[in-house]
Order: sequence, then structure tokens, then C-alpha cells
Amino acid sequence: MSGPTASPDALEAFCVTVLKRAGADVPSAEAAARAMLHASLHGVDSHGVRLLPHYNRAIRGGRVNGTPALRFRRTRLGAGMLNADHAHGALATYEAGRHAVALAEEAGIGAVGIAHTSHFGPAGAYALPIAEAGKIGIVVCNSDSFVRLHDGASRFHGTNPIAVAVPTNGPHPWLLDMATSAVPYNRVALYKTTGETLPDHTASRADGTDTRSAHETDMLAPLGGAVGFKGAGLGGMVEIFSALLTGMRIGPEILPMDGPDMATPRDLGAFVIAVDPDAFAGADILRAGMDRYLRALRDSPPREGARVMAPGDREWAEAGRRRVSGIPLDHETAAAFKDLAAAARIPAPFSDPTPKQTNLEETQE
Amino acid sequence: MSGPTASPDALEAFCVTVLKRAGADVPSAEAAARAMLHASLHGVDSHGVRLLPHYNRAIRGGRVNGTPALRFRRTRLGAGMLNADHAHGALATYEAGRHAVALAEEAGIGAVGIAHTSHFGPAGAYALPIAEAGKIGIVVCNSDSFVRLHDGASRFHGTNPIAVAVPTNGPHPWLLDMATSAVPYNRVALYKTTGETLPDHTASRADGTDTRSAHETDMLAPLGGAVGFKGAGLGGMVEIFSALLTGMRIGPEILPMDGPDMATPRDLGAFVIAVDPDAFAGADILRAGMDRYLRALRDSPPREGARVMAPGDREWAEAGRRRVSGIPLDHETAAAFKDLAAAARIPAPFSDPTPKQTNLEETQE
Repeated sequence: MSGPTASPDALEAFCVTVLKRAGADVPSAEAAARAMLHASLHGVDSHGVRLLPHYNRAIRGGRVNGTPALRFRRTRLGAGMLNADHAHGALATYEAGRHAVALAEEAGIGAVGIAHTSHFGPAGAYALPIAEAGKIGIVVCNSDSFVRLHDGASRFHGTNPIAVAVPTNGPHPWLLDMATSAVPYNRVALYKTTGETLPDHTASRADGTDTRSAHETDMLAPLGGAVGFKGAGLGGMVEIFSALLTGMRIGPEILPMDGPDMATPRDLGAFVIAVDPDAFAGADILRAGMDRYLRALRDSPPREGARVMAPGDREWAEAGRRRVSGIPLDHETAAAFKDLAAAARIPAPFSDPTPKQTNLEETQE
Repeated sequence: MSGPTASPDALEAFCVTVLKRAGADVPSAEAAARAMLHASLHGVDSHGVRLLPHYNRAIRGGRVNGTPALRFRRTRLGAGMLNADHAHGALATYEAGRHAVALAEEAGIGAVGIAHTSHFGPAGAYALPIAEAGKIGIVVCNSDSFVRLHDGASRFHGTNPIAVAVPTNGPHPWLLDMATSAVPYNRVALYKTTGETLPDHTASRADGTDTRSAHETDMLAPLGGAVGFKGAGLGGMVEIFSALLTGMRIGPEILPMDGPDMATPRDLGAFVIAVDPDAFAGADILRAGMDRYLRALRDSPPREGARVMAPGDREWAEAGRRRVSGIPLDHETAAAFKDLAAAARIPAPFSDPTPKQTNLEETQE
């Protein structure tokens, strides 16, 4: 997991150029790069620039439409459907968020279902601008089967993330971005290399029994351990909003993310909600309340040797460090970037392959 | 946990009479009884008729206003605030659900913040009628501090439930009703009696460290075990929607449920959302999709010796049994009911104290 370090600006420009060369139009390339950089900056490397080679293949293969014609249809004063025309999920979801904010400003709450979309990476990237627009943002998306059900012995739901962002008076919104699986799959992949044992009740063998060995892991467990029916229920809620309210595919019906078919669109769904606090007790009361709540939370006694944090705290701190010291790339991503750079006849976005330990995200899918 | 058994109808009539004698008007008494019976029928005994003595005290003491004047103010086409005038939480939340459904029918999605409300018991009771009206219902409420934060060593959030109900073509809606704590506190109370050990990572000592001993338990753990920041984040989301969007109190500011002060209103908040599927891909597509999804889920391979269930399956089955064989009451509740009956000079709602094992709910707060 050690490799070179790159500046955020250089990385973002590199992602845009590679995706444009793959056939993406400027809005698609910029949206995808913006979402990947959100993740890479905030330490969520699983959903960061390591996805660039995947998106490059998906656009070149035709799975993702690099030049989509997004069609938004407002169905009610507070609701609409966005037909994403198999766009990159980032383009579709940022666009849905803008519509949801506009709907919320009129109706108090706005909801946009996204149909015919594709992998969007970090859910939090799309909730964040909704909070920056002064609204509470909620974003969900389902994905291909990777997580067993409670008492189940086959992959069923995807890691089905939930992201919620809430405005505060502080420097950052409150930002929850969590998979409804117990751990991200990339944790399993990492522990195969390091030999570390997984936490209790986070991964299963093919027969559905718990394992703490990454090598034995066939699927992820739903959030909750002994009460995994809660995590499975939350995964189901995400499935229902993302796929069934939008008429799209449920986890077991979705083509696997990793291929081999990179030509057929995957028909993912997603769902975005924006809530205008001025339609309730008011934005000032919400923001002042958030400050009071966060102060109480951060001042509450920690377990010995530990520290109590609010959702997002770890990520904002990591983003501060990475803005200064750069974004670390793992060897595999760095090698793939060199290949992409050579194919596009552009420089790689890093020069000095100083070994550097990347931060393993703890808090994200 | 064994005691007499009572018929649902007799229990409901008893609850209504006791609450009316305490000073509640008919709508308040009927709403509270309806919610308690929902829980007692579906096997969620912690939120069932065992709450009657508590509600009796709360109304007599003045904490809960038995004759409230609920005031609904529509703020936008899809949003409104309900000032519950310290009503019983059941009256306020059923009423908020009806407004949310009406708003959703116009705006596609409807959201109602509830201010100045009180303990509402089973969140699922209020999501269910929204699904029965053909909408997706979401209900949340915060409560007094009982659950530690991730890495925390003090009670902070309440058990902060999330309920979601979704219409299907089957006999029942899909119904998720879960606390964001790992287990309900009444599980701890029960295990103190039985000597059973709690599941891993569900309860903590006063210093925040895990314990599996009910006797050592000082507070509940957030959902998630090693990844309890997810459960704490979900508890925070419930806190924000319930208390901060409505201008009410956060967990650490709420008077304890159990008193001793039973005169001061607790100023709880709650939040209800209804989503009209016809504003998205359509009700027919949602219902057909739910059937397809539930078939795939129930047909998916279970772990050996286990059974895969959808949220609500266990509860519908239990309700079917209890409609026939009656609702079992624990000894403490039965004794309290005898006292309430004597004070009101009415018969207790059971005659034969045949010892009978109650079903311990597994799936609810």
C-alpha cells in the first residue's frame, strides 16, 4: 500500500484528461474526477482515483455513456425523475442533487429518483454540495451483490451506501457516509496481503458462517453482527429507494462491477433527497442546534485511550493533511496510471515514487 | 416473563378506559392504545401495553397533555410543522403521518416535523398506515440518553429508532422498525433475571468498555460492534431530523423517561416523511418490484439451520399467532393492570393467570 504521492490538482487534471481521451464529454469527465478527488482527498481511497482505470474501461467499452443526454422530468412540485442515459454516476448524481435542492426550495423537501445510471463511487460526494447549499442532503445507491443477508449464505445486497450531510455554522457540514455492509471489501483485500484478522462478525465464508480470515472470506456481513438483520434491513431500504422506486435492477440482477462485460449498461438506480430547514424550525435553529449537538458530542467522555468523533471529523482532518502533503497512491494504482499516461501520451501525475504509507480508511465502504 | 394472556380487543378497550380515566380525551386514548396494541400484537412487548402504567402516570402528572390542541401549519407544498401541544406521541405521530400522506399526494414527497411531542413507543406503528395508504413511510424520533457514542464512555443518544414501511402486493407492507442501538434495554433487563450473556459488542460498562454481563451493563452500544461509528452516525441522523430540524431537545437535554419528574413536558421532536411512488417510476412498478425483491430474498440460500426473513416477517407471523391465542403479559405488567383495574373499578382484561412463556422480541428496540 505504499507508492508515490500526487498533488490533488495534478490528479484531478489527469483524471479529466484520461476520461476525455476515453470518450467522455467535459461535464462527464469533470464530474467523475470531482467525485474521485472528494474520496481521495478525504482518505476514502477505495472510492478515489483508484477507480480511474475502471471508469476508463467502462467508457471505452460502452457500459458508461460518455456523452449522455440527461433528461429531468419534474413530476410534482417536490419530485422528479432523472433519466441518466447511462451517464457516469457522478454526473447524474450531482445533477440530481441540484434538482433536489431547487425542488426543496419550493416544496420544502425535494426528491429525485435517478434511472439508468452507473457506479457513482463515494455517496458523500453528492450529499456534501446539498449541505453547502444550506439543505440537508440524503443520497443512496444500490450496487451488485456482495453482502449476505442476516442468516443468509449468498451474496444478495450490494454494499448499498447511505450518505447524509447537514449544514452547520462550523467549517464543515456534518457528513455521514457509510456502507450498510459491516466493512468495505477493500479491507478484506488489504488484509489478504497483510495477514491481519478482520473484526468479529464482518465477513463470511461461502456457507454464510463468520470468518475473521480474509483468505476465507467469500462475502461481506451486513452491519450489526449478532443483530445483522438491522444492517440487512438498511441495505434493503437503500435497495427499495434506489432500484424499486426508480424501476431499475436489484442487486442480484445487476451485472458485476468488474466485468467481464464492459459494454452493457448496468441500469443502476439512485435516489437523492434535499430538505430545506426553513420549511421546518428554520435554518438558523438547525445550524445553532448542530453546533450545540456537536459541542456536546465532542465534549462527551471517551473510552480510555480513545476519542469521540462526529461523522466526517476523521475525513476533514485527513483532507487537511492531504491538501498539504498530497494524495498517496498504492502501487497498483500508480502502475495503472503510468500505463494510462503512456497510452494518452501525457505525463503521469506524480514524479517521485517515494514510498509512503497510505491511510487506510476506517469509516467508509 | 410468564403471566396471563389477554385478548387484543379486551386489552385495547382496557387501555382506552384507563387513559380516559387518567384525563385523556378520546382521540388521545385511542391513539395511544392503538400504538401499544400494534407493538403487543407484533411481539414487540417492550413497546406494547406494558407502557400503559407509564402513560397513566405521565397524563395524570401533567407531563403528557391528555387534551391537546394539535396545530398543523403547512409551510410549503410538501412540508409542514405539527405543534403537538405536549400530546401523547401516538396521537401526534399518527396525525403527522396523515398530513405527510396528503402532502405527498400533492408534492410527490411530504415531510412533517413534530414539535412539543412525547414518547411514542413503536415507530413502526406510524410508518405502517402510511404504507397502507400506498406511500412509503419513514418515521424517526429521538429520546433520552441511553446509548454511548462510538469510543464513548457516557450515555449520549437515545435508542433513536428508524421505521420504514413500503407497500407491496402481498398481504403486508415491508416494515423495518429498528433502534439504532445494538439491542433494546429490555433485553438487558431480561438477561439480568435469566443470567444469559448478551451478544458481543452490544452493551458497555460505565467506562465504555464492552461487557456481555447484563449486571455490569451501564449503557447500550450503538449498532455495529467494531464499526459502531455507523450506528452512532445513524443515531445522530435521527437526532438531527427529530430534534434539530424541529427546534426540540437533544438526548442529553431530555428529562429521563422514568421520572421522577412526571409533570414537566419533555419537548421531544419527531419527523415523518411520506413518498408517493406515483411521483417516481410508479406505484405498480414499485409493488411489482417489491414482490420480485421479496421473492428473491426469501428464496436465497440460508446459513445452515437458519432462515432468511424480510423485515417484518417475524412480526407478521407473531401477530397471526397472537390474534388467535391472545397477548401474553409479563407478571409485572399483569400486576400493574390489576392495580389500574381496581383504581378504575373496572375488570382487569384477563381472568386466567395460566403461566405462559412470552415471546421475547428479537428484532426491535
